[in-house]
Amino acid sequence: MLIRNVNEVPDAPVQMDGVSGIRMALMVGREDGAPHFALRSFKCEAGGHAPKHSHDYEHEVYVVSGRGEVLLEGEYRPLKAGDVVFVPADQEHQFRAAKDEGMHFLCLVPVERNCGGDTPGS
Amino acid sequence: MLIRNVNEVPDAPVQMDGVSGIRMALMVGREDGAPHFALRSFKCEAGGHAPKHSHDYEHEVYVVSGRGEVLLEGEYRPLKAGDVVFVPADQEHQFRAAKDEGMHFLCLVPVERNCGGDTPGS
Repeated sequence: MLIRNVNEVPDAPVQMDGVSGIRMALMVGREDGAPHFALRSFKCEAGGHAPKHSHDYEHEVYVVSGRGEVLLEGEYRPLKAGDVVFVPADQEHQFRAAKDEGMHFLCLVPVERNCGGDTPGS
Repeated sequence: MLIRNVNEVPDAPVQMDGVSGIRMALMVGREDGAPHFALRSFKCEAGGHAPKHSHDYEHEVYVVSGRGEVLLEGEYRPLKAGDVVFVPADQEHQFRAAKDEGMHFLCLVPVERNCGGDTPGS
């Protein structure tokens, strides 16, 4: 059994090229016995951003609170609480918070990459 | 590209034995091209509940707002906003809202059952 609150699980800064001002907490992952997908919580401070990148696995994202944008199909599109985003594999994307407000979002990934091996952060 | 808000996607009452007062919106599913897992939004009115059941696939749940309980390992455990629950495959469980307050939660499932075939509601 596993019940954990997103505000109680310790998070850590995401260390990755192109990242600024984001902390991640792995809420449910491979080590918890999740067989197919992992649930991660990301808190991005105002002006912070994830990298602009693509990879061989999809994202399903839920915006918990705050405001920001996602780069998809070459354009930055506004995000607000309650928004769900699907980013297919191999599509360039970037999540970033507003300049004046942070953004808290969940980002789910499959635990296994399409081309084999563990998904990072799962 | 897919960006949808949980308060804007049409939902429908869940029709299933043992269910009372729950509406579901499929936010990202197989028909959207999700290859591994589906993200559904459930709004459960005060006193409403999902069925007490088990099945051959897991749940990963995020409580968006409200209060309720989940039956896991034979006991009802309290749930509040921000709680994440992992329900392994084949484990009996039940989600229900508080008597005096509804509960809104996301429930993610793999799109394929462990024993083959499409997961219902994916």
